[in-house]
Amino acid sequence: MIKGIKFSGIESGIKAKGLDLGLVLFEEDMHCFAAYTRNRVKAAHIHYNKNQDIDAIRAILVNSGCANACTGRHGIEDLISISDKLSSALGIKNNQILFASTGVIGKRLQKDLIIRNIPELLANLDENNIDAFANAIMTTDTFQKIVKFSFEGKKEYTLIGVAKGAGMINPLFATMLVFLFTDYPVFPNAFSQYFKRCVKETFERITVDGECSTNDTVMLFSKKGHEDNSCVDKFKDTVFKAMKELSLMVVKDGEGATRVIHINIKGAKNKNIAEKIARRIATSPLSKTAFFGCDPNWGRFIAAAGDAGVPLDPDKVEIVLEGVTLAKNGMEIPFDEERLKHLMNKKDIELIINLHSGKASFDIFTTDLTYDYVKINASYRS
Amino acid sequence: MIKGIKFSGIESGIKAKGLDLGLVLFEEDMHCFAAYTRNRVKAAHIHYNKNQDIDAIRAILVNSGCANACTGRHGIEDLISISDKLSSALGIKNNQILFASTGVIGKRLQKDLIIRNIPELLANLDENNIDAFANAIMTTDTFQKIVKFSFEGKKEYTLIGVAKGAGMINPLFATMLVFLFTDYPVFPNAFSQYFKRCVKETFERITVDGECSTNDTVMLFSKKGHEDNSCVDKFKDTVFKAMKELSLMVVKDGEGATRVIHINIKGAKNKNIAEKIARRIATSPLSKTAFFGCDPNWGRFIAAAGDAGVPLDPDKVEIVLEGVTLAKNGMEIPFDEERLKHLMNKKDIELIINLHSGKASFDIFTTDLTYDYVKINASYRS
Repeated sequence: MIKGIKFSGIESGIKAKGLDLGLVLFEEDMHCFAAYTRNRVKAAHIHYNKNQDIDAIRAILVNSGCANACTGRHGIEDLISISDKLSSALGIKNNQILFASTGVIGKRLQKDLIIRNIPELLANLDENNIDAFANAIMTTDTFQKIVKFSFEGKKEYTLIGVAKGAGMINPLFATMLVFLFTDYPVFPNAFSQYFKRCVKETFERITVDGECSTNDTVMLFSKKGHEDNSCVDKFKDTVFKAMKELSLMVVKDGEGATRVIHINIKGAKNKNIAEKIARRIATSPLSKTAFFGCDPNWGRFIAAAGDAGVPLDPDKVEIVLEGVTLAKNGMEIPFDEERLKHLMNKKDIELIINLHSGKASFDIFTTDLTYDYVKINASYRS
Repeated sequence: MIKGIKFSGIESGIKAKGLDLGLVLFEEDMHCFAAYTRNRVKAAHIHYNKNQDIDAIRAILVNSGCANACTGRHGIEDLISISDKLSSALGIKNNQILFASTGVIGKRLQKDLIIRNIPELLANLDENNIDAFANAIMTTDTFQKIVKFSFEGKKEYTLIGVAKGAGMINPLFATMLVFLFTDYPVFPNAFSQYFKRCVKETFERITVDGECSTNDTVMLFSKKGHEDNSCVDKFKDTVFKAMKELSLMVVKDGEGATRVIHINIKGAKNKNIAEKIARRIATSPLSKTAFFGCDPNWGRFIAAAGDAGVPLDPDKVEIVLEGVTLAKNGMEIPFDEERLKHLMNKKDIELIINLHSGKASFDIFTTDLTYDYVKINASYRS
């Protein structure tokens, strides 16, 4: 709980059933730091939010069930209508509200339905109601994603984070929405670079199916005021820890996933090479089906690495899976396949590939590719 | 049948069962034109072939069941041993033989087994035995891929093509091997650029799972002598037609595929943009599962396009699936979902995306992503 930050989550009817509309209300003006999808097709809320007063935010409204993407100017007009009504109900300015959406692309937001539900949303607000908010933004997530940390400065501060992960919607594709809230008073100029770096090192280090949503959003809301110099580093560490933990929860709950694979590329000439190879393996269907099948089929990993579009000397490559060396100098080292199969049959696996060509490294977390991924995403929408 | 070109295919024991070793013998020296995988990890046969006398080729030996990739210098030494024995058995020079392999990566070729089988391979040679050869190079292909064309010049010429497609091996990943044979006497300098362009416009226009094999090989063998100027264009057209037809057979037989999707990107500012977007959609798991599920979920296509790493103006995008317009100006046009679902439920589907930003276009053929793809590739190797 953070004093002055209230949550609500209700069933408005956007989705056929279940909670689908969440509101966070801030008692005082908050700074907002935001990172959005790199997809060239961006949802309406992303275009809308960029024109609001991000140093005096009082509320964020989030819906599931409709992405409000590919809705053109209508999508933005709908948000303006909602914002007008919600701001008068709250007694704030209409540029003090932000939005986020997740759901089916190409359908317009049911703005009248949402406006009709404002009284219930407000009645539901409570400092202890983050569970309802977390549920309202979930789609096919199989578990709630909330983290909470405290740290000491001149007083005790709290940071709470909530996320929805890689679940399909109705069914559409995975969108990641993440919201972090803290009563720590951030000095925005100094922090915004750090915020971006944290996003890069956490949420941009996970992948489920290599797909990039039109709606991905990460936001951190902080109180305003004089920064507490006694705990700047503690605050920064806490932000990173919260993002890292939420990102791992998101990948763990990836669509159909039975395990999380931590891919670690080492010994690269530079970080770009390590990153390209890590991302290529992390999105390789043949590597991901091998993880599902507990098959220590290292040829698939090295073949994906060779197809990453960066220089690679195959004759130097060393591959270590769950601590067992499968290949060295690009050739197989005899190993016990049955034992490996057993070692791979768990929730978390580590794959280390050493290129022996330099000192740079890059790591990423991915899921396996399973029947359930196909099932979830091949079901007809209706 | 082409006079002077003999085929054989036998069961040597490399695979647990079935034909796994094929030989083509040429009565006279042939030119060989070859294109190999762009993967940085390349099978031994690719390194080996580059050092042979490609203007006087007399035989090609192809095995399935073992990729002979990631086998280091051993892999090449094994081919040298086999070539020594096979060339003396045939009474030719040892640099007149080429090789191709497909199968599991990281395992050495059983050279002694292959050498022991040379007499049977030779006994099996026959101008009419292309079926056995085609079967010997197959892995999990569900049908044989052979094409045959004739064309008239000063005499009648023949072009025969044979391919193995995107079937996993034992199970490893899809390798494409393609061999074309003709009695037309090609002038090599003029033809080699055209050959490369044909490969680019046919085999590089298909994808099953976006994976690039260490072993991919396309070879065309032609007779030597004075080119028949009366039918150069007919010959060139025939080469293109044969490659196009084989490439479509390969994608149709993609692992687990139930349908082939022809993706056509139009109205792009330049061809590179059209190609990047076409390839991004063709390898997008969410687009491919939508095709499997007969879901006209156009939001997935536009989201993949937006993630292709090239400029895109979402507000201009038009999407037409099986002749029905789903979206215009980046927004949904009301359509009958049930009818669309029905239209999508067939073997061949066409998706046209018009970017309305220029005149360039690019097309590619892909498969859907199905349970069977996961099944085939998640099965344990043993």
